[in-house]
Amino acid sequence: MNAISHQIQLLRRPTGLPTPDDFALREVPLPALQKGEVLVTNQWLSVDPYMRGRMSEAKSYVPPFPLNGPLDGGAIGVVEASRHPDFAVGDRVSSMQGWRDRFVANGAQLTRLPDTRLPPQLFLGALGMPGMTAWAGLHKVARLQAGETLLVSAASGAVGTMAVQLAKQAGARVIGSTGSADKVAYLKTLGADAVINYRETPDLDAELARLAPEGIHVYFENVGGAMLDAALNHMALHGRIVLCGLIEQYNGQGSGPRNLAQVIRKRILIQGLLVSDHWQHYGEFLAEAIPAFEAGALQAEETVSTGLASMPQAFIGLFEGRNTGKMLVKLD
Amino acid sequence: MNAISHQIQLLRRPTGLPTPDDFALREVPLPALQKGEVLVTNQWLSVDPYMRGRMSEAKSYVPPFPLNGPLDGGAIGVVEASRHPDFAVGDRVSSMQGWRDRFVANGAQLTRLPDTRLPPQLFLGALGMPGMTAWAGLHKVARLQAGETLLVSAASGAVGTMAVQLAKQAGARVIGSTGSADKVAYLKTLGADAVINYRETPDLDAELARLAPEGIHVYFENVGGAMLDAALNHMALHGRIVLCGLIEQYNGQGSGPRNLAQVIRKRILIQGLLVSDHWQHYGEFLAEAIPAFEAGALQAEETVSTGLASMPQAFIGLFEGRNTGKMLVKLD
Repeated sequence: MNAISHQIQLLRRPTGLPTPDDFALREVPLPALQKGEVLVTNQWLSVDPYMRGRMSEAKSYVPPFPLNGPLDGGAIGVVEASRHPDFAVGDRVSSMQGWRDRFVANGAQLTRLPDTRLPPQLFLGALGMPGMTAWAGLHKVARLQAGETLLVSAASGAVGTMAVQLAKQAGARVIGSTGSADKVAYLKTLGADAVINYRETPDLDAELARLAPEGIHVYFENVGGAMLDAALNHMALHGRIVLCGLIEQYNGQGSGPRNLAQVIRKRILIQGLLVSDHWQHYGEFLAEAIPAFEAGALQAEETVSTGLASMPQAFIGLFEGRNTGKMLVKLD
Repeated sequence: MNAISHQIQLLRRPTGLPTPDDFALREVPLPALQKGEVLVTNQWLSVDPYMRGRMSEAKSYVPPFPLNGPLDGGAIGVVEASRHPDFAVGDRVSSMQGWRDRFVANGAQLTRLPDTRLPPQLFLGALGMPGMTAWAGLHKVARLQAGETLLVSAASGAVGTMAVQLAKQAGARVIGSTGSADKVAYLKTLGADAVINYRETPDLDAELARLAPEGIHVYFENVGGAMLDAALNHMALHGRIVLCGLIEQYNGQGSGPRNLAQVIRKRILIQGLLVSDHWQHYGEFLAEAIPAFEAGALQAEETVSTGLASMPQAFIGLFEGRNTGKMLVKLD
């Protein structure tokens, strides 16, 4: 008898903010293991803003999710059966076979987790794609220097919390922006020098003038909208903007910056960032970040919901600011 | 008896498009020459879009023009009297003492024109600031490669005509955008592979898809607005946008790009360009461009109005697309 996979499928392409009705939980029988294949039971599923892009038809850097097929995304699981020489039962692996509880894949599609006692789900967040995104943005794109001022939007998210901490370790002054008093307090525990609660700051321009009188040298942008407009006004000469996300626009709202002339006046560099361009440096990142986590010098927050059925709501929650740190679904 | 200078002064800060009433022509007596000073009679005055920025109070990369004082800008003149050892009567010099017919300045503020039989006013246009801007944008910022596709907006302007020609010399495929049938024809004589008349192209998106099926590798942006939106949709992966001008916004109209997410998807680099960052390469530029003009391999078009009093109208004309190539005022 073959194993059964439960998986979340996309029923229709969402308009604006997705709703639970856009998704369905379905049962799919898995094929028998062929030579080279591995059966994996997932334990942790990654929930990421970028997935919204793939739910639309629009041409993007990855193809759209098919309708009535499984969604995918990062996942951490355990090998249940293996016909691949590199994987044994019990091995912990990461894959892109998320949004489901179980799957069969060729061993070539799996990555064994590094040998560490750190919680495995860190490899979906602070030690995975979001953490690597923060590191590559700061160090490979912006080349942040000690003594510079960094502004991070969505600072309490999975990418933002790592950007704040890595920038502090690099000797920068860090200003975070986030959307609740709890998140402000949390970011201060991570070492942020100043935190803006954008929901309670009517004049972002004045606030940035106050907090960054010498200008913002690097803006790590995850949001877009009003904060981007305000940041452009307060960038330092030759400042760099790492354009990592524009979560405010992912569901069709939002507008473009009205003050691009600042880019000329201050000779600002804006560079779009996708972590996929930087994976060749992942080993370098892990060699820094794993020991830092083991020593307690880096921290990661998680927002966890339980059970595969909770995945659509967890995903929608990303756009409502319901996560601090990495949004995850834990499977039983 | 001291010499008299006629000069255009700014009476008030324009709102939107400037009008002739924002300016006045006034007579000012010049001081007697002190040691080290030179009296210059201007022959050619430069008319440039960037001057609009200095007419407003807004903080910019150069201080605003004072009210009821002389405006300034590039100028080419002849030495009429000199108490500076490096300058003799009859020398041709360039300065930033434009918007006037005559001035006294310390010799340190003057640059003798290079020794060439080319028309001196070229050093205000194709061999001056606009030409150097095009060269620095293509070669120092975008690092345009042979075989790449370049899009240039305001392609028939002083910067654009040089960008088109220098890019062709570098082996690129060049698409220009301009606003009249005459300018389209002119750009084709300069070697542009394709030219868009944006006023007669209802669907810029479709036109760019047709003209740049492999994507735009470099966009030399002088305008902003709808063309920037369309270009973002058709940039190639890792494309570069040289943000040199946003003339559409200088008088307060215009809006920001609504599709910045393309910058992330395609990992686009946007770099603000001011030529002032690149003057250390001016000798390198002239060493290439002067022989190219002398050999007829580069051409320059001029739009000339005559007499100091015509300067405000010439300036306003820049925003109405009345120039092909460099806009100049010739003094008698």
